[in-house]
Amino acid sequence: MPTGHCFMALSLDGFVARPDHALDWLTKQPTGPEDHGYDAFIAGMDGLVMGSGSFRTALGFPDWPYAKPVVVLSRTLTPSDIPAALAAKVRISSQTPQALMAELDAMGWTRAYVDGGRVIHSLLRAGLVQDLTLTLIPILIGQGLRMFGPLTRDIDLTLTQATPFPSGLVQLRYLVRP
Amino acid sequence: MPTGHCFMALSLDGFVARPDHALDWLTKQPTGPEDHGYDAFIAGMDGLVMGSGSFRTALGFPDWPYAKPVVVLSRTLTPSDIPAALAAKVRISSQTPQALMAELDAMGWTRAYVDGGRVIHSLLRAGLVQDLTLTLIPILIGQGLRMFGPLTRDIDLTLTQATPFPSGLVQLRYLVRP
Repeated sequence: MPTGHCFMALSLDGFVARPDHALDWLTKQPTGPEDHGYDAFIAGMDGLVMGSGSFRTALGFPDWPYAKPVVVLSRTLTPSDIPAALAAKVRISSQTPQALMAELDAMGWTRAYVDGGRVIHSLLRAGLVQDLTLTLIPILIGQGLRMFGPLTRDIDLTLTQATPFPSGLVQLRYLVRP
Repeated sequence: MPTGHCFMALSLDGFVARPDHALDWLTKQPTGPEDHGYDAFIAGMDGLVMGSGSFRTALGFPDWPYAKPVVVLSRTLTPSDIPAALAAKVRISSQTPQALMAELDAMGWTRAYVDGGRVIHSLLRAGLVQDLTLTLIPILIGQGLRMFGPLTRDIDLTLTQATPFPSGLVQLRYLVRP
């Protein structure tokens, strides 16, 4: 089965986006030429799994931001929601997390970039996320879409990396303990 | 006016305690002889300001944990709720955050340790917190009492320290930008 891997930026109070999905609080950070490792991270992935919210946000960017295949987890979107130019790169799946991983396995994936708060959390609950790379942004935004949600049991983590950057961003990497 | 200073441990998903105020997820961490700087921090404070929840939690400890004066911010507690043995160390105040700081100023305080999620957040919103020392615990607990709450404006922070410990705890220190 492929393993799930997260790479997310979040405000210090735990939000990945404002209530309207805006990322201005993130993009305004004066990070200059700092390399936060995104390119290296994504180079090690076979593709991305995201929810419909992250998909719509990505559609709003001037250019489609992903070179790798993307699977959008959604029970409401249909193939007709995918712009023709992206038909070869994006597909919709309405599977449960376990069935999705089996589907990705059949496609030859071994490592999936799991993106978007709700999808990350749903795969975390299902025990399908192997590690979390979190970049903490030095700001409190007070409300928005959360990275984490309710759990039926604690999830213990092992810290494997902690890197502060001159901009004030801090990147933390955790392995999810089985 | 005295300045407010926070020193809090929180789960990676942003909780300072379980819904029933339990701290087992924190106390179980195998931190051994690590010094997370609490004694040095509290030595620089004139006293503590906390809410009734933190006060009740502290009353449940085998020994009263604070050598410094404590002010409990509460509109429901009265002096009769303070055990006689603590009468010289603990007082109740029902002031607003601004009036509380003026009251502490009159008592000669210059630096107040602000403790407990709701009190920290209320003083943060009022612009009365100068810095946050947060110790991130490598665990997701899913639900509980939060460190941070809704805001009417963003609060920008400046990272001044990031210290990972062998146990996997990470301590971050931020100045609150005016």
